[in-house]
Amino acid sequence: MRAVDIIMRKRDGKELSREELAFLIKGYVDGTIPEYQVSAWAMAVFFQGMSPVETAALTEVMFKSGTAMDLSGIAGPFVDKHSTGGVGDKTSLILAPLIAALGIKDPMMSGRALGHTGGTLDKLESIPGYRTNLSAGEFREILGRDGFAMAGQTRDVVPADRLLYALRDVTGTVESIPLITASILAKKAAEGADALVLDVKYGSGAFMKDPAAGEQLARSLVNTGAALGMRITALLTDMNEPLGAMVGNFLEVEESLDCLEGNGPADLMEVSLELAARMVVLGNKAPDPAAGRRLCEACLASGRPREFFLANIQSQGGDVPRFLELRGTYRSPYEGEIRAVQSGYIARIDAWKVGHAGIPLGVGRNRTEDAVSPTAGVQLHRKGGDLVEAGDLVMTVWAKDTAGLAAALPQLAEAVEYAEKQPVPRRLLLKEIT
Amino acid sequence: MRAVDIIMRKRDGKELSREELAFLIKGYVDGTIPEYQVSAWAMAVFFQGMSPVETAALTEVMFKSGTAMDLSGIAGPFVDKHSTGGVGDKTSLILAPLIAALGIKDPMMSGRALGHTGGTLDKLESIPGYRTNLSAGEFREILGRDGFAMAGQTRDVVPADRLLYALRDVTGTVESIPLITASILAKKAAEGADALVLDVKYGSGAFMKDPAAGEQLARSLVNTGAALGMRITALLTDMNEPLGAMVGNFLEVEESLDCLEGNGPADLMEVSLELAARMVVLGNKAPDPAAGRRLCEACLASGRPREFFLANIQSQGGDVPRFLELRGTYRSPYEGEIRAVQSGYIARIDAWKVGHAGIPLGVGRNRTEDAVSPTAGVQLHRKGGDLVEAGDLVMTVWAKDTAGLAAALPQLAEAVEYAEKQPVPRRLLLKEIT
Repeated sequence: MRAVDIIMRKRDGKELSREELAFLIKGYVDGTIPEYQVSAWAMAVFFQGMSPVETAALTEVMFKSGTAMDLSGIAGPFVDKHSTGGVGDKTSLILAPLIAALGIKDPMMSGRALGHTGGTLDKLESIPGYRTNLSAGEFREILGRDGFAMAGQTRDVVPADRLLYALRDVTGTVESIPLITASILAKKAAEGADALVLDVKYGSGAFMKDPAAGEQLARSLVNTGAALGMRITALLTDMNEPLGAMVGNFLEVEESLDCLEGNGPADLMEVSLELAARMVVLGNKAPDPAAGRRLCEACLASGRPREFFLANIQSQGGDVPRFLELRGTYRSPYEGEIRAVQSGYIARIDAWKVGHAGIPLGVGRNRTEDAVSPTAGVQLHRKGGDLVEAGDLVMTVWAKDTAGLAAALPQLAEAVEYAEKQPVPRRLLLKEIT
Repeated sequence: MRAVDIIMRKRDGKELSREELAFLIKGYVDGTIPEYQVSAWAMAVFFQGMSPVETAALTEVMFKSGTAMDLSGIAGPFVDKHSTGGVGDKTSLILAPLIAALGIKDPMMSGRALGHTGGTLDKLESIPGYRTNLSAGEFREILGRDGFAMAGQTRDVVPADRLLYALRDVTGTVESIPLITASILAKKAAEGADALVLDVKYGSGAFMKDPAAGEQLARSLVNTGAALGMRITALLTDMNEPLGAMVGNFLEVEESLDCLEGNGPADLMEVSLELAARMVVLGNKAPDPAAGRRLCEACLASGRPREFFLANIQSQGGDVPRFLELRGTYRSPYEGEIRAVQSGYIARIDAWKVGHAGIPLGVGRNRTEDAVSPTAGVQLHRKGGDLVEAGDLVMTVWAKDTAGLAAALPQLAEAVEYAEKQPVPRRLLLKEIT
């Protein structure tokens, strides 16, 4: 078998066999197949796609390139959620303690901020002392005791994905549905989750700009998961505006705690509850999403998810008293604001523009090796549908430094779209794909 | 400017600017842009193609990556021929001395055998003592004195092509018309030729299997050449059967000498004269191809091209008396034969199969670093259209060793196609593209 023949077969629209995919991926991981062949193959996949059978085979081959998390001895069920990435999307921080309080374990492995999208690990690490680089033993122990654990992926978990993701990022081959599918599912399979709720976002702040592309990805994920014996429910949700009022690392942890205390913003609560309802169904705690949602609402009202959240902070090295003390005040001193430039309705606060402004602010980063700031961010005082008078405060902005503030403010001002008539409210949950 | 953005723009079907192409190619040559980005870009070009303007810009950028041959002080005109590669194609060895005898200089830089196609340098080096690794000074001196010089490309001539060609070979991106166009023309521009005749071959033994693909490449070469100020005439010629009766290194030199002595096989003479006629027109020695052909025929009859050929052998280190002495006897001792297995007509001797059999025989090679044998090859006693009786000798075969002979004989037997009725004669010259 030769890599060049595999590349040419894919280039010519043929279906690759499991053996060919295993040859390619194993060779890539062990260094016998060079990156220039893998990137040419990835570009051929971008153009020619992959069949469902091929996508499932690639996922399995990638999953088998590493060491899966061993959850034996911990009582399940294990249900996880994965989001395709957005702006202000802190639902993971709300869902994990919520479903843990309902007896479902979430072995959550998350990522970091990159480009305009935020990262769960960066948000959690804004809590003083919080560690996400858990050993496998710590991860198991915390998951078993607290019902959820929040970690990054180690080098051993799906090394093929770690390599391939970095390569795709620099070779223009990120936007390929089968490659995205295999990347997500190989990692989720390695976590040990039995079932998965996928939050597939569409809109300006999402990876997929239109709902049709989002739905295509959702279907690919659900079908490939089914072929591999994973139960998956996908929700297609709106990411044209940031989710909630806070975009920033510590800001988003604060807002998650607000939600767990019953004081979260409506859009964030709505998306979180719809996702949680499906996790509860997949964890066999409710017969259908409506019943699952009622269960989640009652659980939140009990205050137990908040206790689970604080217990996890404690377990992962966070300083809970200090965290609560910092609440509402842990902000960078480089502060600015965006005020309405006209009277009327806000049509939309563009999620993509806010996300991109997050890079100079210090919320996000362009390169994985760059540091982020815990105290940078944006608070949205108004969102789409709200009435404003010219001069009203629309955003408060905190930057890591003066230069970042100066760079971000014009971008943020541009993110505010106005309308003379009241805009049609956006549907947060567009579709469920199972 | 970032390479990944250039890759994505091409992936999305955009036209790249000269600046973008220069950034990519310069970065590739100086090592700042890694091969995995270049291969992804090449695969995107495979799918999206390039506009004529883009192809011309790429050619120029590649040409400028190296040092062009300085022909100042040598009297022109300089006209070269390039073939897209075939089996038994030794026209270069006939054309260079023929047009030199007519006062046109040919600064010929050639390649080596690879896969099923032969290589001019390997053929010439089968002449005892003949050297093709000429210094620039030697090249100029021999070109000026003998009217033509035959050399390989040094590392300095179009380094971008040297790198890119090797990369395309292992990444499934060889078969891209704009990339083939830029590769050929950048090298030809670097030679210093004012005008060029292209022999674009189609058929089983050619790179392009069907005439339509061959014509597409021919048009791309002619149009791109025109955009760069090079005068180019392309002929689309048949490569379904080997050209002439000899396939092998020394065998083909012998057959070239036969042609220069007026004893060449009809198909080889026909293609050579049609190509030479165009070179003579481009060299301003005749008003049109018909007149050019008459001039070439008269010149051949004079015997002067043969003298030019022997003078060049002498100039490039070859031992002319020894060469003439070896004629007809310089054959490997590992000899075999192919006889007709049925009576009737030979429909075709498949060029691709003969070319591939050349690899085990030692005529060609799979990898550029492998050695070839001067004395291996195939002599075709019969070709398409000939009547045979079962048992008649169709080929004599010489291999570098016993194993090679055993491997090649069944392949060669399979190359012989039979027909009950007399086959329609093939048209050797299908089309002229200017």
